[in-house]
Amino acid sequence: MFANTPKPPYYAVIFTSMRTDIDAGYGEVAQRMVDLASAQPGFLGVESARGEDGLGITVSYWQSEAAILAWKQHAEHTDARNAGRAQWYRQCITRVAQVQRAYAFERES
Amino acid sequence: MFANTPKPPYYAVIFTSMRTDIDAGYGEVAQRMVDLASAQPGFLGVESARGEDGLGITVSYWQSEAAILAWKQHAEHTDARNAGRAQWYRQCITRVAQVQRAYAFERES
Repeated sequence: MFANTPKPPYYAVIFTSMRTDIDAGYGEVAQRMVDLASAQPGFLGVESARGEDGLGITVSYWQSEAAILAWKQHAEHTDARNAGRAQWYRQCITRVAQVQRAYAFERES
Repeated sequence: MFANTPKPPYYAVIFTSMRTDIDAGYGEVAQRMVDLASAQPGFLGVESARGEDGLGITVSYWQSEAAILAWKQHAEHTDARNAGRAQWYRQCITRVAQVQRAYAFERES
């Protein structure tokens, strides 16, 4: 569930969202987007969490800005984004960032 | 619950973590860290979510790398980080990134 990202620099797309109460196939499309993104050139990994209060954060990691742009323009992704704005999301913010350094900790036991 | 961040560029600290089963005051310290961070110079906001699978993502936003470094070196934050590694977190990754652009959507109704 952690993205196995390489040594920085690489890019992160931080997508923070608040859901509406509308289901309308959300779960299937959300999973399809993860599967589809994972198959794109330059995809490095994704981490996602949604709390009981409805706020969700999904961070996808990419090799380059060009890879992010290509994924943004993918037809099926564009359809899903439009559906998200039409029905699934009350509010969302997408931030594109360059990861400059990273520190990992993992328990040995 | 959304961070009201300014126009980019600014910085994001993406903290992804998997909890252990150990409570030991975790909730109180986590809330204290949010309160304390919010009072630091250069703090812009924070967004946080933890799903049922135990994976959590907290993204804090900062004006500068200097502000991030000062917060990293804050004594009470250092104590909390050490306690996190000793007992609360099975695994965690901290990524420091520069936000280059952002897009927001908010439902009108």
